[in-house]
Amino acid sequence: MHVTGIVVEYNPMHNGHLYHVEQSRKTTGADAVVAVMSGHFLQRGEPALVNKWARAKMALHQGVDLVLELPAAYATQSATLFAFGSVAVLDSLGIVDSLCFGSESGDIDSLQALSTIIVEEPPLLQSFIQEELQKGQSYPRATGVALTRYLELDPQFDSTAIGQPNNMLGLEYLTALRKLNSSIQPHTIQRIVAGYNEENITHAKIASATAIRKATMQSGLDATETLLPEYSYKLLQEEFREGRGPVNWECFKQPLFTLLHRATPAELAGYVGVDEGLESRLLEASLRTETVHDLISAVKTKRYTWTKIQRALTAILLGLTREAQAGLHLEQGPDYIRVLGFTDQGRKLLRAASEKARRPILTKLPREKSPMLELDIRASRIYAGGYSRTQPGAALWDISKPVLMV
Amino acid sequence: MHVTGIVVEYNPMHNGHLYHVEQSRKTTGADAVVAVMSGHFLQRGEPALVNKWARAKMALHQGVDLVLELPAAYATQSATLFAFGSVAVLDSLGIVDSLCFGSESGDIDSLQALSTIIVEEPPLLQSFIQEELQKGQSYPRATGVALTRYLELDPQFDSTAIGQPNNMLGLEYLTALRKLNSSIQPHTIQRIVAGYNEENITHAKIASATAIRKATMQSGLDATETLLPEYSYKLLQEEFREGRGPVNWECFKQPLFTLLHRATPAELAGYVGVDEGLESRLLEASLRTETVHDLISAVKTKRYTWTKIQRALTAILLGLTREAQAGLHLEQGPDYIRVLGFTDQGRKLLRAASEKARRPILTKLPREKSPMLELDIRASRIYAGGYSRTQPGAALWDISKPVLMV
Repeated sequence: MHVTGIVVEYNPMHNGHLYHVEQSRKTTGADAVVAVMSGHFLQRGEPALVNKWARAKMALHQGVDLVLELPAAYATQSATLFAFGSVAVLDSLGIVDSLCFGSESGDIDSLQALSTIIVEEPPLLQSFIQEELQKGQSYPRATGVALTRYLELDPQFDSTAIGQPNNMLGLEYLTALRKLNSSIQPHTIQRIVAGYNEENITHAKIASATAIRKATMQSGLDATETLLPEYSYKLLQEEFREGRGPVNWECFKQPLFTLLHRATPAELAGYVGVDEGLESRLLEASLRTETVHDLISAVKTKRYTWTKIQRALTAILLGLTREAQAGLHLEQGPDYIRVLGFTDQGRKLLRAASEKARRPILTKLPREKSPMLELDIRASRIYAGGYSRTQPGAALWDISKPVLMV
Repeated sequence: MHVTGIVVEYNPMHNGHLYHVEQSRKTTGADAVVAVMSGHFLQRGEPALVNKWARAKMALHQGVDLVLELPAAYATQSATLFAFGSVAVLDSLGIVDSLCFGSESGDIDSLQALSTIIVEEPPLLQSFIQEELQKGQSYPRATGVALTRYLELDPQFDSTAIGQPNNMLGLEYLTALRKLNSSIQPHTIQRIVAGYNEENITHAKIASATAIRKATMQSGLDATETLLPEYSYKLLQEEFREGRGPVNWECFKQPLFTLLHRATPAELAGYVGVDEGLESRLLEASLRTETVHDLISAVKTKRYTWTKIQRALTAILLGLTREAQAGLHLEQGPDYIRVLGFTDQGRKLLRAASEKARRPILTKLPREKSPMLELDIRASRIYAGGYSRTQPGAALWDISKPVLMV
C-alpha cells in the first residue's frame, strides 16, 4: 500500500484543497492519504475559524484517510519549525512513502536543487550571508537576500522561485526531510489560481482560505457557498449555528488585553516570538487600541510583520515562554502521534503503523501527558473561551471527544 | 474646621449610605466628610458594579466632600489589611479629626474595650489561641474562637458582638488607629435595618448593597428604584445605558478561565490568597464549570469561603503575586493619597491638607509611579475589559480623566 502525506490547516477546507488531495493521490499513485493538520492555532498566528474536530471531519469526508494533529508547539511557528514538526509526524508514523505539497514552481527537481544549496551553504553563499548580516539584517532575511544574490549568478536557477510563499514552505519540507534522514519521497503539485494569501475572491470556484475567511467575516458564510465543497459548507453552517464560530482573534480580545495589561515588559519579553523590543510596542499599543486588529496595526512595522506579531500574541495567549519551549526539545520532533480521526482506509493505516511507528500513536489521551501534549490541551481550553456561545464541557473535549471514525 | 473620615465602597451608594453620611456629620459635629473608597475591585473580592469615577460622583453629590481612593493593594484583602489601608489614608491626610463607622453594636466604648483585649492579648487569651491553633484551626479562626471563649468568662463583655461583621470591621479600624498611633477619634453609629450581607430586600427604603446588586442583576435596575437616592439611580441608569455596567464577575469569565487554563499549579499558588491547596481545587474546577459563579461554588468549602475564593480570583486576574505584594510594603500604609474628586468644601480640605499631609496628594497621576499606584492603574485597565460595550480610551482613564469637581 502506497501512502502519501500532506500538511494542511483546512481553515476551512475549500475547493482548492480538494483539488490538492485528489492531485496528491494521482501524482503519487497513493492508496491512502495521511494529513498532518494544525490544531486550534495556526501557522500565521491565528485561531482557527472552527475547531480541530470540525476541520478533521471536513478532511475525512473529503478525501483524507487519516488526520493527525500537528502539536501546537510547532503549529504557530516560523515556516522552518512548522515544516519540521509536520514532516516529523509523517516520518515517525513509519508507513508514509511520499510527501505531496503545493508550490508555485511545481517542479520538484529545481526545488530539490535549491534545497541542496540551502543545506550545503557553499562558501560564496556563506560570504553573502555574512555581508547581509553585517548590514544589520535579521538572520532569515539575510539568508533570503544572500540566496537570491547567489542564484542570480547561476542561470540554471530560477531565482524568482525564492520569495514565493509556497515554494519557500516547500523548501522547508525538503530541508526537514533531509534533517530527519527520511525515506519519504517529496512531490510537488503546481498550485492553481489563487495565491496563498490572496485576500479577494477572483475566481468562481477556487479562492484562498484567507479570502474565504474574510468573506465569511464580512458578508456571512453564504457569500462563500460556491467556494466550498458542500460538506465543508454544511459543517461550517452547523458549527456557526451552534455558536462554535466563526472564531477569530477578536474572540480573544479580553483575555489578550488582560494579559498585556498585567504583564511587566520583562515578563512579556519572555514569551516566544516577543523579541527585539516588541514587548514595549505591544504594551504601549494595548493602551490606545480596543481591538486585536487595531493592536496589530499599531504595532506593525517592516520588521514586525503581521504574522510575526500574531504568532507572538498566540504565545502570550497560550502562555508559551521561551523557557517552557526550551523544555519541549522541538529539535527532536513531536513526541507523540495524535490521531484526530480516520476512515476505514485510515484504520488499516493505523494498523500498519502500529508496528512501525517511532512515536506512541494516541487515539485517546494517556494519563501521563508530556509537556508538549499539555500545550495542545491548554490551547484547546483557551480556544474554547472564544466560542460565541458557551459550550458545556468544552474544556474537557480533548479528553472526552472520541477519535472521529468516518 | 472639624473633619470626619468614613470608609466606603458605595457599590452602589444607597439610602442606608446616605443615612450613614448624615449621621457621621451629626454624631461628630463635622464640617466636612472625607471618604476613602475602594477602586474597581472590592473587599469581598468582587469587581464593582460601576467604575470608581461614577461611584465617586454619587458620593460627592450626596454628602461627601472629598473622595480618596483606597489602593487596590488594600481594597481586596482581609478586613485587617483593608481597614489598615483605609485608616492609614485618612490618617496620612493630616486633617482628619474623627473616624465614623457603622456597627451592629453602636457602642464605641465596648468596642474599644474589646480592641484593647485584642491588641494586648492577655496571657489567658494567648493560651486559648494556642489551644485552638493546636486543633488545626487557621490563625484568624483560632483567634476568633479564643476571643469568644475569653469574653464569655467576663460578664461585662457582650461576647455576641464578636462575629457580627460590622463590629469586626470596626474593631479592625480601632486596631489600625492604634497601630498608626493616630490622633483620629473613633465614633460608631448603630446600623439600621439591613444586615451587611443580607441578600433580600426586606425594608421599603433601606436594603444592603448586596441585595440591591442582586435585584439589579436579576430584575434590572428598575427593581431598586425605591432603595436608591435619586442621584444614584439616575447615574446607574446612565452608566448602564452607556455600556459601563452592571459589571460583575461573569464579565471577567474569559480572562479568568484563560488564566486558570494557562497556569501551572505552582504559578497559581504564587498568587496572593491562593494557598492551602486552593490552586489544585481551582484548576480542577475550571475544567468542569462554565461560569465564575459555578467555579466558586465548585471550589467552596468551609475552609475556602466564597469571599476568600473571590479575593484569590481577583489576585489571579490582576496578576498580584505574593512576591509582588511583598515589594509593596503594605505594612507602611499607602504611599500616596489619590484624590478621585471633591466639592467646594472638599477643595478647602485639600488646601488645608496640602501642608499637613504625610504622603503626596495626587490629583493627577505623576510621571513616576510607585508599584502600588501601578497596581491601581492595572486594575482599572483590566476592569475596563469587563464593560458590556467597548469604551474607547478606557485603558487610559486613570491618566486622562480629570479629578471630579462637584
